[in-house]
Amino acid sequence: MKRIILLRHGQSVWNLENRFTGWTDVELTAQGRDEAADAGRLMHDAGLLPDIAFTSYLRRAIHTLQLSLASMERDWIPVIKDWHLNERHYGALQGLDKADTARRYGDEQVYRWRRSFDVTPPPITADDPRYPGFDPRYSALAQDELPLSESLQDTIARVRCCWEELIVPAMQSHDTALVAAHGNSLRGLAMMMQHLTATEIVSVEILTGRPWVFEVNDRMQVINQYHL
Amino acid sequence: MKRIILLRHGQSVWNLENRFTGWTDVELTAQGRDEAADAGRLMHDAGLLPDIAFTSYLRRAIHTLQLSLASMERDWIPVIKDWHLNERHYGALQGLDKADTARRYGDEQVYRWRRSFDVTPPPITADDPRYPGFDPRYSALAQDELPLSESLQDTIARVRCCWEELIVPAMQSHDTALVAAHGNSLRGLAMMMQHLTATEIVSVEILTGRPWVFEVNDRMQVINQYHL
Repeated sequence: MKRIILLRHGQSVWNLENRFTGWTDVELTAQGRDEAADAGRLMHDAGLLPDIAFTSYLRRAIHTLQLSLASMERDWIPVIKDWHLNERHYGALQGLDKADTARRYGDEQVYRWRRSFDVTPPPITADDPRYPGFDPRYSALAQDELPLSESLQDTIARVRCCWEELIVPAMQSHDTALVAAHGNSLRGLAMMMQHLTATEIVSVEILTGRPWVFEVNDRMQVINQYHL
Repeated sequence: MKRIILLRHGQSVWNLENRFTGWTDVELTAQGRDEAADAGRLMHDAGLLPDIAFTSYLRRAIHTLQLSLASMERDWIPVIKDWHLNERHYGALQGLDKADTARRYGDEQVYRWRRSFDVTPPPITADDPRYPGFDPRYSALAQDELPLSESLQDTIARVRCCWEELIVPAMQSHDTALVAAHGNSLRGLAMMMQHLTATEIVSVEILTGRPWVFEVNDRMQVINQYHL
């Protein structure tokens, strides 16, 4: 029996400021850092010690991983960073205040952008300062990989690359993988592991700072799952 | 022209307590954390932005790397951890107070243990709690790789594995590598890059928290070196 543990980062500066974040590389708050360290202690106390870890290119996830590993004295395990685990790209909404956006576009429209499976927020243009092509961390990506905006479906489609090309192969030689990432990229992993439908996954809320443990067999089929 | 930047971790708890550390996994002090962040700012301000990094299995080096990358907003670059970059194993001296040890064995003996190229401190035994075989991070190593004590020569011999198998191949596809590690493992890299003799390398003092930049050509020959 092997384990894949999903860990959603805790409070970031823009969570606190109630702004759409997406690929914006904001920091954790002090509370977010505490949540990460607490998550590490939960895993440690449950005897769930990762021997490999995955995270996104965004520092709120990277720091969550580092702080949780530090609190269980597992700083030394291999860590793979993959942009495919980034949060959903929120297009032109990135940086906007959520309440302002609701006043401007209406609650119903904002709800559709946030909670649909296949609705895409308004895209940015390729000359927008928020365009990922201007960020050195994405300079090796092909242009058609650089999102201008993403639906949850788009996000999950690219999370699948990380699952199939990195996580599943790594589980051949590792027992316990920790994936520290974001609400929507982790939804993608949960959807794949649990074979959920589009309707089911949009209603899944992943708790911040609470490790979600999936026990899998050798064929990567989930045989049990629980929260710490 | 490519670059390899050596960064020695700053003050650790046992530096402060004046104890032999070696493979003991002690934390950085607050001062050591500041030194790491400052080193990142030095690299950032010099426009020396690593696109890959290497560190040891010991958290004072891992945290030095993480803090320096955070202060230059390069948290997202790939990081390779390799035990071959660990500090020299100090054998039975690990944990002892340096002043006590000098009183007990004499200054001359301690000087030989600390400053010779090929003198090995008294070894631990394989039932010593300090034996690396008891530590899960080294569980994949062959028994003959697990040191009971090391001379500087021994340390440099295993650092060569990291250089040849990881760093040199990575420079095929990267421009600037940051290696955050320890006084003696970094001496090994400096010795190899500069073709120093045993007599020369024992007198090289690597400064903590001060990035040491080696500019290399495509054949990994050093064409220039300087400190930030």
